[in-house]
Amino acid sequence: MTVRVGVIGVGVMGADHVRTLHAVVSGATVTVITDFDASRAATIAEEVGARTVATAAELIAAPDVDAVIIASHDSAHAEQVSLCLDHRKPVLCEKPLAPSVDECASLVTREEHLALANPLISVGFMRRFHAPYQELATAIRSGSVGTPLLIRASHRNVTAYPGGNSTDTVTNSAIHEIDITRWLLRSEIVEVSWHAPKSTSMDTSRRDPQILMLRTADDVLTVVDVFVNARYGYDVRCEVVGETGAVSLAPSHALTVDASLRSTATYPEDWRPLFADSYRRQLQAWVDALTEGTRSPLASARDGLRAIEVAEALIVSMNNVGAVTPVKNS
Amino acid sequence: MTVRVGVIGVGVMGADHVRTLHAVVSGATVTVITDFDASRAATIAEEVGARTVATAAELIAAPDVDAVIIASHDSAHAEQVSLCLDHRKPVLCEKPLAPSVDECASLVTREEHLALANPLISVGFMRRFHAPYQELATAIRSGSVGTPLLIRASHRNVTAYPGGNSTDTVTNSAIHEIDITRWLLRSEIVEVSWHAPKSTSMDTSRRDPQILMLRTADDVLTVVDVFVNARYGYDVRCEVVGETGAVSLAPSHALTVDASLRSTATYPEDWRPLFADSYRRQLQAWVDALTEGTRSPLASARDGLRAIEVAEALIVSMNNVGAVTPVKNS
Amino acid sequence: MTVRVGVIGVGVMGADHVRTLHAVVSGATVTVITDFDASRAATIAEEVGARTVATAAELIAAPDVDAVIIASHDSAHAEQVSLCLDHRKPVLCEKPLAPSVDECASLVTREEHLALANPLISVGFMRRFHAPYQELATAIRSGSVGTPLLIRASHRNVTAYPGGNSTDTVTNSAIHEIDITRWLLRSEIVEVSWHAPKSTSMDTSRRDPQILMLRTADDVLTVVDVFVNARYGYDVRCEVVGETGAVSLAPSHALTVDASLRSTATYPEDWRPLFADSYRRQLQAWVDALTEGTRSPLASARDGLRAIEVAEALIVSMNNVGAVTPVKNS
Amino acid sequence: MTVRVGVIGVGVMGADHVRTLHAVVSGATVTVITDFDASRAATIAEEVGARTVATAAELIAAPDVDAVIIASHDSAHAEQVSLCLDHRKPVLCEKPLAPSVDECASLVTREEHLALANPLISVGFMRRFHAPYQELATAIRSGSVGTPLLIRASHRNVTAYPGGNSTDTVTNSAIHEIDITRWLLRSEIVEVSWHAPKSTSMDTSRRDPQILMLRTADDVLTVVDVFVNARYGYDVRCEVVGETGAVSLAPSHALTVDASLRSTATYPEDWRPLFADSYRRQLQAWVDALTEGTRSPLASARDGLRAIEVAEALIVSMNNVGAVTPVKNS
Repeated sequence: MTVRVGVIGVGVMGADHVRTLHAVVSGATVTVITDFDASRAATIAEEVGARTVATAAELIAAPDVDAVIIASHDSAHAEQVSLCLDHRKPVLCEKPLAPSVDECASLVTREEHLALANPLISVGFMRRFHAPYQELATAIRSGSVGTPLLIRASHRNVTAYPGGNSTDTVTNSAIHEIDITRWLLRSEIVEVSWHAPKSTSMDTSRRDPQILMLRTADDVLTVVDVFVNARYGYDVRCEVVGETGAVSLAPSHALTVDASLRSTATYPEDWRPLFADSYRRQLQAWVDALTEGTRSPLASARDGLRAIEVAEALIVSMNNVGAVTPVKNS
Repeated sequence: MTVRVGVIGVGVMGADHVRTLHAVVSGATVTVITDFDASRAATIAEEVGARTVATAAELIAAPDVDAVIIASHDSAHAEQVSLCLDHRKPVLCEKPLAPSVDECASLVTREEHLALANPLISVGFMRRFHAPYQELATAIRSGSVGTPLLIRASHRNVTAYPGGNSTDTVTNSAIHEIDITRWLLRSEIVEVSWHAPKSTSMDTSRRDPQILMLRTADDVLTVVDVFVNARYGYDVRCEVVGETGAVSLAPSHALTVDASLRSTATYPEDWRPLFADSYRRQLQAWVDALTEGTRSPLASARDGLRAIEVAEALIVSMNNVGAVTPVKNS
Repeated sequence: MTVRVGVIGVGVMGADHVRTLHAVVSGATVTVITDFDASRAATIAEEVGARTVATAAELIAAPDVDAVIIASHDSAHAEQVSLCLDHRKPVLCEKPLAPSVDECASLVTREEHLALANPLISVGFMRRFHAPYQELATAIRSGSVGTPLLIRASHRNVTAYPGGNSTDTVTNSAIHEIDITRWLLRSEIVEVSWHAPKSTSMDTSRRDPQILMLRTADDVLTVVDVFVNARYGYDVRCEVVGETGAVSLAPSHALTVDASLRSTATYPEDWRPLFADSYRRQLQAWVDALTEGTRSPLASARDGLRAIEVAEALIVSMNNVGAVTPVKNS
Repeated sequence: MTVRVGVIGVGVMGADHVRTLHAVVSGATVTVITDFDASRAATIAEEVGARTVATAAELIAAPDVDAVIIASHDSAHAEQVSLCLDHRKPVLCEKPLAPSVDECASLVTREEHLALANPLISVGFMRRFHAPYQELATAIRSGSVGTPLLIRASHRNVTAYPGGNSTDTVTNSAIHEIDITRWLLRSEIVEVSWHAPKSTSMDTSRRDPQILMLRTADDVLTVVDVFVNARYGYDVRCEVVGETGAVSLAPSHALTVDASLRSTATYPEDWRPLFADSYRRQLQAWVDALTEGTRSPLASARDGLRAIEVAEALIVSMNNVGAVTPVKNS
C-alpha cells in the first residue's frame, strides 16, 4: 500500500517535505499540492508528478489524498487541522499546532471526542527524530549521568526572519527547546521565567538574545539561550547535567579544514543541513504508522498544546519584568 | 514505477540490504530472496513479504526480478554477475566484484562487449555515498587545500573475522581505502608498497597492523594503516594534505559523556552505525538510476577491477619484503 | 635583588605557593613560614630552607620578610592584611580578601588613605593569569566576536569540601566567576539573581547546583552554573557571545585515549592541574612588580571588595526566592 | 646558589633562552653573552644586565660563567662543546649536537673518557619536557593502550627557512621525531626508509613533504610525515597505537572562535607558542640539576649522537630510491 499524501503550503518547509516524501521516503507518494501562490504550487507539483488544487479544503476532501501535511502559515493551521478531523484524515501539522492556547486546546478536545484508537493529529517536532537527541534520551534513560538536575541549551540562528518580534523568538524558535525538554525529561514544564541582556544592534525589532528558564514538575531547571541573529552560524546545543555526570550533543561537523593558521569546521546557514535527516525519519515514521495502522510516534496534538502553553507563560514573564510564572494547563 | 529487486545472500550484509530497501528506500520492493541457508532466506523473506527461490540462477531469471543485489560469498560473485549479464539485468554486486583480477577483467570485457548506454554492473563501494567523504571530495575540488600531495588514512576494526589471513586484510578491508583514494583523487594508483610493524598478539593468523603506501599517477602518496584487531573501536580516518592546507574527516560521535573523571565519546563496534546511511543512499541512488533510465552513479565494474589490481600488487609487495611494486592494468 | 617572602598558612594552597616560589619563580625566595599547625610549618620550611615563626604578626614584622603571602583561613585575612598595611609590606592575599563586605571595605579605605603610588594589597584571583582567559580577553578586545552580549559559564567541582553550605558555593567557588566576569567585560556587576534546580542527593548540606545571573553595567548578562559536587571532573567553561560571534575556552586535555569502544580525555580531580601554571605566572608577575617597583598587575583590594559585594547580593537573592537584587557598592 | 650562565648565539633561539633564564627560571642568571653579530649581543645583554665578550672561547673560559648554552650555528657546535669539555663546564647545546655522526661520536668519546659522575653535555631536545609528551609517555608505560605497535606522527611548519634542502628537513626538523620516538619507546631505531610524494610547488629547493619510516629494535614502526611548507600552521601530531588502544596528543588550542559560519581554532605560526613552556621547563630542569649536583635529566651526548645516526641513514635511503636502510651505530 502506498500512502497518498496531500501537501498544503509549499514554501521552504512544505517544498522540502514534498521532495523528501517523493525521493527518499518509502511507501508514500505526493498526489495533491496547494498553495496560496498557485504558480509555486504548480512548479513543485510538476516536479513530483502531483496535481494541484485551489484550496486547502479541496485538498483535504480529495479522494486521492489519504493523509495531509500542513506547512501553511501558522495562522491557518487550526482551521486546516480541523477540516482534517472532519474528514477523518491523518494530518501532520508543522509546529506550532496553532498560535494560541485556545485554538490548540480546541483541537485537542475535538480529537479526543472522536475517541479514535489512533489519533489523527501529529505535530512536526522533528527534533524527536534527530538521531543525536535520540541517543541523548537513551543515555539519560540508561542512567549514564544519574538523575538529571539541569539542562543547558543554546539555539542560535544566523539571522531572524524579517518582521518578527520578541514573542516570535519564543513561539517559533524556542518552541523546539520547550518540546524537546518535555520529551527528554518526560516531565511537564510547570514554571518559567524570561530574561534578556542587551540586545544585538543587528535587529531592532526584538529582544535578542533571550534567556529562558524552564522548570519541570520533577524540579529540573532548563536554561536556554535563544539568539536568532547570532550571525556566526546555525547552532543547536544541549547538555544534560545529572547527579553523576553530564551528557552533551557533540558538534556535528563532517570535516575539519586546516588553512590560513586556522583549524576550521563549518556551521550551516540554517537548520536544513542539520535536520534534513530528522525530517526524513519523521516522515518515514509517520508513513510507516499509517501503513501499518499503528499509533503515530510523532508529537501529538496534546504535545502541540503543551508547547504553546509554555510559550504563553514565557510571554507573560517577558511582559512582567522576568517574573517567575506558572504554566497554566488547559 | 517500482523496481522489483532480488537479493542473493542474506547474511549480515544482504539482510541489511533487504531491510533497507524495504523500509527506507523509495521506489523499490524486494520480491525474491535466495540463500544457501534456505531457512535464513525464508525468515527474511517473510519479514518483507518476498518469496524465496532455491538458487541464484533461478532468482536472476525470475520474471518478477528487475534488478539483482549480490551479497553472497566473494567466490560466487563472478558467476552470478555473469548470469545477470546474460539476462541483461542490472546488478549491484558487493565488493569485491570478484576475488581475482582475471575474473574481474573478464566481467569488464563481457559488459563492454554488450555496448550498453547504461552499463549493468555496479559495485558496492558505499563510501562514495558517505556524506563526509562527499564533502571531503567537494572540499578538494573547490581548492580549499590546494593541490593534494599526501593522504593519511586509518582503517581500524575491533576484531577480525576468524580464519582470515594477511591478504584478506588487503582484499576485504583495505580495498575500501584503495577505491576511495582513486575516487577522491581522480587518478589511478600506479605503484604500491606494503609494510608492517610487529603484529598484535591478539591474532596470530595474520600480520596486523599493516601499512600500505599507494602512489597515484599524479604522484600523490597515500599512507594507510589498516589494523583489523585494533580493539578500541571501529574507526575510519582520512586526511588529505595539499599545498595550502589539509582537510580531514571529523570524528562522528553524536554525544559526549562526562563521567568518572573522563570525557568520553563512543566508538561503534562495527561499520554499521557509521555507514548505515551510506548504504541507504547508495541503494537509493541505484534505484533512482534504474527508475529514471540513467547511468548508475555507483562504482562500475572497471572500478571493481582497478581495486583488485591494486590489491594484487600489494600482495606481491607483501610477499617480496615490501618492495615497491607497479600496479598492472588488465 | 631577590624578594624575601613570608608565607602565612601552608595548607594545600599555601604549601603550593611556597613550592612554586621556591622552585619555579625567578627572583624570589621563601624565608619565613608560619601556620597554626607548627609541625606542618616546620616540614614545609625545611623543604625550602626557610625558618618558622609562631605567629602571623611575627612573620609580618620580620626584617627578613619583604613581602607576605596570606593563605590562612578566610576569617583571618582581614586582620593579617591590616598588619601588612601597618608594616607597609606588600601582601598577596588569597581570595576572598575577607569574608564580609565591611571588612573588605575597611581594608580598601585604609589602603587608600596611605596614598601610595603602588598599592600594597594584591588578591589571588589567579584566573586573570590563566593563559586561555588572557587569550579570551584579547579576543574580545580585538572585536573578534563584536560587542559582548551574553556570557555562559560553568564551574564544576568533583566533590565539595565537607561542612560547607549554600553560601559557601557563592563565596568560595562562584567568586572566581564573579571576578573574571568583571575582568573580561571591564564593567561592574550591578544586579544579580540566584536560581536552583533540584539538588543532588550527594550533598544534603547545600543547594547544588546553583544558577547565578550577573548583569553588568553595560547590560551584558552572565549565566553561571556552579555545581560543586558534579562528580565527573573538575571543569571550568566560559563562552562569550557577541554581536557577530562567540568565543569559548577550549577543553584543556593533553591526550586522547582510544580504548574499550571509547575515545576519552581525562578531567582533573581538582583545580591544581588546570591552574598550576596560572598560579606560577601570578606569583612571577607579583614578584616582578616588587622587583621593578611597579604597580602590581594582580587583582587589587578594590577588586576583592567588588567580588564580595556581588557575592552578598547573590546571597540576598538566594534568601529571597531568587529575586533580582541590586549590588550595593560600599 | 645561583647558576651563572653564558649564552653563545642570540638569534631567535638563543635570545629566547636568555630571556627565559632571566625572567622565569629560578636559580639562574645570565652573566655573559656572545654573538658573531656584536650589536645583537649588546642589545640582549643590556636587556638582562649581562656583559658581552667577543668570542665563544672567551665566554667559555670566563670565571663568571658556571655553565654554557650553545645556540650558535650548527656548524660551530662541535668545537664549542669541545671547549666546554676542556673547561669542565656543563653545556646545554641546541640540537643537533653536531651536523655529522663523526663529530658527535668524537664528543661522546671525549666526554666518556672524562668519566664524570655527572656528564657535562646536555642536548636541547625540548620535546622531552613538553607536558603532553610526558603524559603520552606515562600513558604508554601504564599500559593504557597495551604493547605499542605503531606510531603515526606529523611535523608541519608554515614555511621552511630559505636556503634549505631535502636533507635539512631530516636533520633540522625530523630530528625531533627521531629523538622523541626513541624516548617514547625506549628502544633504538635500527632501520629506516624515506619516501616522498609530489613536492609542493611553494619550495623548489627540497622534496617536501617527506615520509619517514623508523623501525625500532622492538619492531615498532613509526611513520612520520614532515612537511616544512605546510602553510596552514605549525602543527605537531603523534599517535601511539598499541595492542588494545591508541593514545594521541590532543590539539593544543586555548580558544574556539565561532564566526562567519565557521568554528575556528588558531594554529601558531611557529614552534614558540607551542613549546615555550617546554623550553622553560627544560632550562629549569637543567639549572636544578646543576644546583643540586645531580645528573642532567636532559638528552645526553649519546642521545644527540643516536639522532644523527638515524638522520644519516634516512639520507642514505633518500639517495637510494627509498631503500630500507639499517642504522649504523658508532
